[in-house]
Amino acid sequence: MAVGLKPPVDLLPVAGVRLGVAAADIRGNGAKRNDVCVIVLPARARSAVVLTNNVFAAAPVQLIRKHRGECAAPRALLINSGNANAGTGDVGLADAALCCQQLADQLGVEAQAVWPFSTGVIGQRLPAQRLCEAIPGAVAAAAADGWQSAAQAIMTTDTVAKGCSATMTVGGQQYTVSGMTKGAGMIRPDMATMLAFVATDAPLSQAAVDSLLEHAVDASFHNIVVDGDTSTNDACTLTATGEADALIEPGTAEFAVVEQVVTQVFVDLAQRIVRDGEGATKFVTVQVDGARTADEARQVAMTVAESPLVKTAWFASDANWGRMLAAVGRSGIDGLALRGVILGLTSADGSLQTTMVASGQPADGYDESVADIIMALPEFTVQIGLGRGDATARIWTCDLGHDYVRINAEYRT
Amino acid sequence: MAVGLKPPVDLLPVAGVRLGVAAADIRGNGAKRNDVCVIVLPARARSAVVLTNNVFAAAPVQLIRKHRGECAAPRALLINSGNANAGTGDVGLADAALCCQQLADQLGVEAQAVWPFSTGVIGQRLPAQRLCEAIPGAVAAAAADGWQSAAQAIMTTDTVAKGCSATMTVGGQQYTVSGMTKGAGMIRPDMATMLAFVATDAPLSQAAVDSLLEHAVDASFHNIVVDGDTSTNDACTLTATGEADALIEPGTAEFAVVEQVVTQVFVDLAQRIVRDGEGATKFVTVQVDGARTADEARQVAMTVAESPLVKTAWFASDANWGRMLAAVGRSGIDGLALRGVILGLTSADGSLQTTMVASGQPADGYDESVADIIMALPEFTVQIGLGRGDATARIWTCDLGHDYVRINAEYRT
Repeated sequence: MAVGLKPPVDLLPVAGVRLGVAAADIRGNGAKRNDVCVIVLPARARSAVVLTNNVFAAAPVQLIRKHRGECAAPRALLINSGNANAGTGDVGLADAALCCQQLADQLGVEAQAVWPFSTGVIGQRLPAQRLCEAIPGAVAAAAADGWQSAAQAIMTTDTVAKGCSATMTVGGQQYTVSGMTKGAGMIRPDMATMLAFVATDAPLSQAAVDSLLEHAVDASFHNIVVDGDTSTNDACTLTATGEADALIEPGTAEFAVVEQVVTQVFVDLAQRIVRDGEGATKFVTVQVDGARTADEARQVAMTVAESPLVKTAWFASDANWGRMLAAVGRSGIDGLALRGVILGLTSADGSLQTTMVASGQPADGYDESVADIIMALPEFTVQIGLGRGDATARIWTCDLGHDYVRINAEYRT
Repeated sequence: MAVGLKPPVDLLPVAGVRLGVAAADIRGNGAKRNDVCVIVLPARARSAVVLTNNVFAAAPVQLIRKHRGECAAPRALLINSGNANAGTGDVGLADAALCCQQLADQLGVEAQAVWPFSTGVIGQRLPAQRLCEAIPGAVAAAAADGWQSAAQAIMTTDTVAKGCSATMTVGGQQYTVSGMTKGAGMIRPDMATMLAFVATDAPLSQAAVDSLLEHAVDASFHNIVVDGDTSTNDACTLTATGEADALIEPGTAEFAVVEQVVTQVFVDLAQRIVRDGEGATKFVTVQVDGARTADEARQVAMTVAESPLVKTAWFASDANWGRMLAAVGRSGIDGLALRGVILGLTSADGSLQTTMVASGQPADGYDESVADIIMALPEFTVQIGLGRGDATARIWTCDLGHDYVRINAEYRT
């Protein structure tokens, strides 16, 4: 059901980064699918990580926070699918630590140099022993061209593996950015954790990596919504492996080039998650203009993008502007005047456009048949003008269909 | 599909209040169903109204705000189903005013003494002419025992008419409270407006009616959630018709008795809306204890009650504590510690209870089979202990099933 989404076929190696996978039967069903992934990083790489804001962080998230304080740069990332190691208390922390130690021993580094990531069912103990037994095979298989199989190994209920690559020229040198991600929205805490791993061989300083990750996540994963739930395990990393006499620092012209390309990779990855949203049949961009502040614009966009009523109307290809207008109206914006609000629809390719509402009522000459054509497309933009300022926001989201309920009601049963 | 909900059969007359209905074919489909309701109030009655917070208030809501400023006490309420008269601009305001004038002429009162209420499709012009033609019939039919037919006339996609009555003894006198409501949650802006009309023959002062309505709505309609959407037309009124040398004022012992009984009527009406929630198969109470403040308790309860993931798990009778715990974790409470959190389930009759989570992990001796039995019941309570204070909150909500998507996706198509 993924909307306009195919598995990546051309993920480029990033110098210094090696990826290997193995089958540990984490799910305990005897299946031979790869469910463990090891990403080996060079000694002097600079990495940064953004972790979930959910106060009930899973054991691996807690352990990353600890390791990050004890060891400046990770030497390996250890990822498993099939079990989130969340809601598992002290025994979960010990299990995660055991797996980190096993990978550290294999690589000859300290345990604090391993960052662990888990995604899958909440509240069941991680089969740490089986995971440890699979680690040597994953390390042995680690190779520069392992991105494709890694993107598959970290999938849970994703229907399509997700990754993309880009190249950029900075100071006459060509560099690569590659990334992979998993998740079908910020949804399903027990199976849908959003994980993303991005690496570049550009010679970025630690400060540049930190700044870049924050910017790129703000511009990408923070602007998607499927159903508003946030996982206990969400995590996103960025690593730079390139060496140079003078590493690229924030605020330079080189940094600006890198920031643009890397951010585009993050946006591409984030949109892939929405396109694979549970039960999604439409990829919808909610664009808000004319707000007084960016926060206000975002608040309106999010209220529309999260409304179950609006999302079910999209699913039905129903140009139901009343639901969208009502969502704008309840978004909590101080002193918003109905008469300033414009509501429009645009097809993804820009070839069709219609203004549905102006001044709080059906726009003059509004032709519902055009709106119906746009709403029936798999991708379109909802444009909301507030008419009271210059701030904007853009949120990527999907519709809410029968399969969302089916998937979430039937899972675990 | 309504959960444990039957139409009321014993709505009691309230002295001085007369209700009449008529068929105006508001929907324009030729059906003869009653879709107009007139509630005639005595000259000296005291009334109060709470209106939607949605900034895009429908024309009738705007007109009530105007009339309320111009005339202290309404002499009649005019309600139509089938058309919300929302998103209709100046012409919608003129249509609503025309209908008020028609009813005022019939009753020999000023137009400002009529409060109009509409519920139904957004963005289509109200057939004011047909509505006006039906008003004389509704006035002629107005009678003290009209509550039952009135509760039916105001329904839109409700599957069951909703109303209830109670009696109370204050200062040796017996008084009656009767009310009716419509809506299937705070949902479907285009068809599901929440409307409620309550009257009592207790001799309450205007200040007592104002205070009582605010308290009763806070304790009832503000604590229900189906999908979090708020209509452009939501409205709730309370009228007191009784006369006495000394009317009952707030802060007295008599007021306390009235407040308790009237609030219970409001709670009953509000719960009927949840029980008839779209696609609902379960009536769930989310009880939060041990919070630092009531706002904090409410925030946690609302986050759990609004989570699509949690609601689909309830629909599936899946004792998925991971989803509930993750919702608590993302509810935005400062410094909430996982180790203080307790999560439990109780059957509606209190005969079955189980603690699922304590200290952030499965509780010692947790028996999932008991949780499964409770979750399969049509009514149960989710208990969340935060362990950091004395404040509490209670929200009534329902599950999210296939029929929610079906109803909302197929409506209008």
